[in-house]
Amino acid sequence: MKEKKQNILIIGAGLCGSLLALRLGQRGYNVTVYEKRPDLRKVDISAGRSINLAFSDRGNKGMKLVGLEEEVKKLCIPMNGRMIHDKEGNTFMSNYSGRDCEYINSISREDLNSLLLTEAEKHENVKIHFNKGCKRVDFENTTAEFKDYVDNSVFIEDADVIIATDGAGSALRKSYYLGKKFLFSFSQDYLTHGYKELSILPTEDGGYKTFKNALHIWPRGDFMIIALPNLDGSFTVTLFLSYDDGKYNFNNLTTPEIVTEFFQKEFPDALEIMPNLVNDFFENPTAPLGTIKCSPWHYKGNTLLMGDSAHAIVPFYGQGMNASFEDVVEFDAVLDEGHDNWEAIFKAYEKRRKKDTDAIADLAIDNFHEMKDHVGQAIFQEKRKIEMALEKEFPEDYSSKYSLVTFNEVIGYREAMLRGRAQDKAILNMLSDGEISTALDLTDKNVLKEILGKVKKQTEAILEDDRIAGLY
Amino acid sequence: MKEKKQNILIIGAGLCGSLLALRLGQRGYNVTVYEKRPDLRKVDISAGRSINLAFSDRGNKGMKLVGLEEEVKKLCIPMNGRMIHDKEGNTFMSNYSGRDCEYINSISREDLNSLLLTEAEKHENVKIHFNKGCKRVDFENTTAEFKDYVDNSVFIEDADVIIATDGAGSALRKSYYLGKKFLFSFSQDYLTHGYKELSILPTEDGGYKTFKNALHIWPRGDFMIIALPNLDGSFTVTLFLSYDDGKYNFNNLTTPEIVTEFFQKEFPDALEIMPNLVNDFFENPTAPLGTIKCSPWHYKGNTLLMGDSAHAIVPFYGQGMNASFEDVVEFDAVLDEGHDNWEAIFKAYEKRRKKDTDAIADLAIDNFHEMKDHVGQAIFQEKRKIEMALEKEFPEDYSSKYSLVTFNEVIGYREAMLRGRAQDKAILNMLSDGEISTALDLTDKNVLKEILGKVKKQTEAILEDDRIAGLY
Repeated sequence: MKEKKQNILIIGAGLCGSLLALRLGQRGYNVTVYEKRPDLRKVDISAGRSINLAFSDRGNKGMKLVGLEEEVKKLCIPMNGRMIHDKEGNTFMSNYSGRDCEYINSISREDLNSLLLTEAEKHENVKIHFNKGCKRVDFENTTAEFKDYVDNSVFIEDADVIIATDGAGSALRKSYYLGKKFLFSFSQDYLTHGYKELSILPTEDGGYKTFKNALHIWPRGDFMIIALPNLDGSFTVTLFLSYDDGKYNFNNLTTPEIVTEFFQKEFPDALEIMPNLVNDFFENPTAPLGTIKCSPWHYKGNTLLMGDSAHAIVPFYGQGMNASFEDVVEFDAVLDEGHDNWEAIFKAYEKRRKKDTDAIADLAIDNFHEMKDHVGQAIFQEKRKIEMALEKEFPEDYSSKYSLVTFNEVIGYREAMLRGRAQDKAILNMLSDGEISTALDLTDKNVLKEILGKVKKQTEAILEDDRIAGLY
Repeated sequence: MKEKKQNILIIGAGLCGSLLALRLGQRGYNVTVYEKRPDLRKVDISAGRSINLAFSDRGNKGMKLVGLEEEVKKLCIPMNGRMIHDKEGNTFMSNYSGRDCEYINSISREDLNSLLLTEAEKHENVKIHFNKGCKRVDFENTTAEFKDYVDNSVFIEDADVIIATDGAGSALRKSYYLGKKFLFSFSQDYLTHGYKELSILPTEDGGYKTFKNALHIWPRGDFMIIALPNLDGSFTVTLFLSYDDGKYNFNNLTTPEIVTEFFQKEFPDALEIMPNLVNDFFENPTAPLGTIKCSPWHYKGNTLLMGDSAHAIVPFYGQGMNASFEDVVEFDAVLDEGHDNWEAIFKAYEKRRKKDTDAIADLAIDNFHEMKDHVGQAIFQEKRKIEMALEKEFPEDYSSKYSLVTFNEVIGYREAMLRGRAQDKAILNMLSDGEISTALDLTDKNVLKEILGKVKKQTEAILEDDRIAGLY
């Protein structure tokens, strides 16, 4: 693509759209962005539905790409592991990795988005317009229809290429689906659970009411709450709960008394530091949790879906934003390959990327079950203990599934999933058979070396068995 | 449900709808059926898109339920196995089972549908109306809007319950999706391949030009043709081919010369008995192959999806119609459970049934790869040989995945899938490791007994490993 002065229209200035605008601006394209919401640097638009972001190594690739690594660090609060809270209020820490350098970060969506918008606007070939929502895209003629929410006018924009980064409710994806001009595979899958945002406010002197550097989890089998720290001393808390099933659910938590009873019984230590619970509960909406997959992501060389518009996932691996940032990195790498036209670029991008976004969607569902349930089970805790010891003793030779997904950003999500699942299966089965055990001395290097050998051998055998059976 | 005189509106008088109407008529309900097409007993409506049906044991449960088992037999041509045709025109037969009593049947969709319609109409509490297409369903008020294709009038029908058996393009499912009144999980997944119907005509004296009692397959890795016998001496042939990929595909087979060249090169023995190829090819449409899943199938106790409208699958396991008939059998069993209201009935039905229709959808995709590719590979042929020998020698003790799905109608599709896949994995890996082999004397009962023991042990181990790893 020699002609850099082409006009690119980006729909949506969320995290993915603003990073993409910045990067394409850096590459010299003429970029116009339309965002349906007001400018979040000027107006508070959070509306109690954010779920804090867990920023990690794949997202950081995007920051490196645009030269913002150091700026972003200032917004980050490191979380070294999960702090598990049981029903009696006991806590124990389960690190994300046996390597000290590996942790995830709590970050505010607004702060991160603001940084990207401001950086993008520094390029005079990048223009961002707010309060303009996309209604539909004519993907055969590469035009999009917008509504201006300030003066209610409707207008049509033309471009050489349209890229939709307009999230799970994407107007372009809807146009693909309703247009029926080509075979469009599409899925939307809702969990039986929804979520509601709550909060733990700071202490009077602006301190943290519970341990700062952790992702807190109160796992209860069929439901859970989690809490992530904010820079101001507060925690953003999220309740994940079934709409219909179980003794307590979103449909029957209808009075302050029942909500308080539920927390008193299930999360007493959280309730103690959440005097604002009832207020939050009835003020904030209950929102659904869904996975969206589709294909193709592009129509000829005219239009492309990117980020959540192409692959919305549930939040349980903390990878939604990281995956969207990695989209931009991968797209940028395809631009470097020197394809002749946009259709070739879009095809190459989807071929390279889709298997990985499918994988993180499935991994995020896995982690839903792991977080609300498995982290409380003995055999999964034993697995975790062994993996932590292996990662600590052999930092170059072992990475758990969580590490492969979160910290090994040089491999794709699909490879991380296949290897990670095989390792989990190997360890769980060897624990169950007594072939390895946490009763062994996990501080003895020779003991660990033997365990590592067994895990590696068994993992390879599992992968090979699946390969022979034609399972992938 | 004591009140039998309730009014049930069925949308669609295809195979599922007409069997359901017949059964609910037998149970005493007032049944009204609206079908968008003309009465197929009076007008030829096939339009070259039928794919012959493979009627087997699960479908037969439906026939037994309504007392039509003997009538249907008259329409059936038994197919004992797959006859594989290689590129040189060599053929070999691969039976569906080592048990002589297990075979599938070629049957005409029109003949079977006609039988069911005529039987249903014998009940005076069943009324079937043709040429009336459903436009939308108001699932909150249990009414449906129809268009009369004869006089173009539009009318609204009311009922106590509406059941949509209106196939892959279901109007009720569309109303669920577009209505956004509840969280509706939905997927449509297209294969990269489409299909086109062709034919082998009878000999001049009405005989069959190739072996009658088989499902013929010409597997070529990335594409294939199949042929199923009809009562009149003809075969219905279907070409499955990519739209875009490969040297020959639907997008570039645009002239009689290229089509003939393609068949000359890939299917020379078929071409010899298909002088009508070019005519068929350009007269019949190319149609897509898709899988549809969704949930929930019902809205409160008002409306319910059944058959293809709830779970359309690709045709490669020959189970689409069988699964729809099994839906009616399962629904009938739920009616016998004595629930208090329709909502309880619909919930119980979906809970019992959905896991199985999800499984057959996935199995059908598996078989797409098996039919076009695996059946031509040595290790899969060896597996088949061993399984045939096991089924023959130990008819009570062994069933292949194909047999579990097709002939073991007392277990559900999901159980058949889990056990069948584990068996396949066990056998393929033991063949690969040399632990079992087709070089052994497979006529020696003791040899086979040892193989059976190994296969069973390894299958159990695989299922147990998956269970411990929490994979299901």
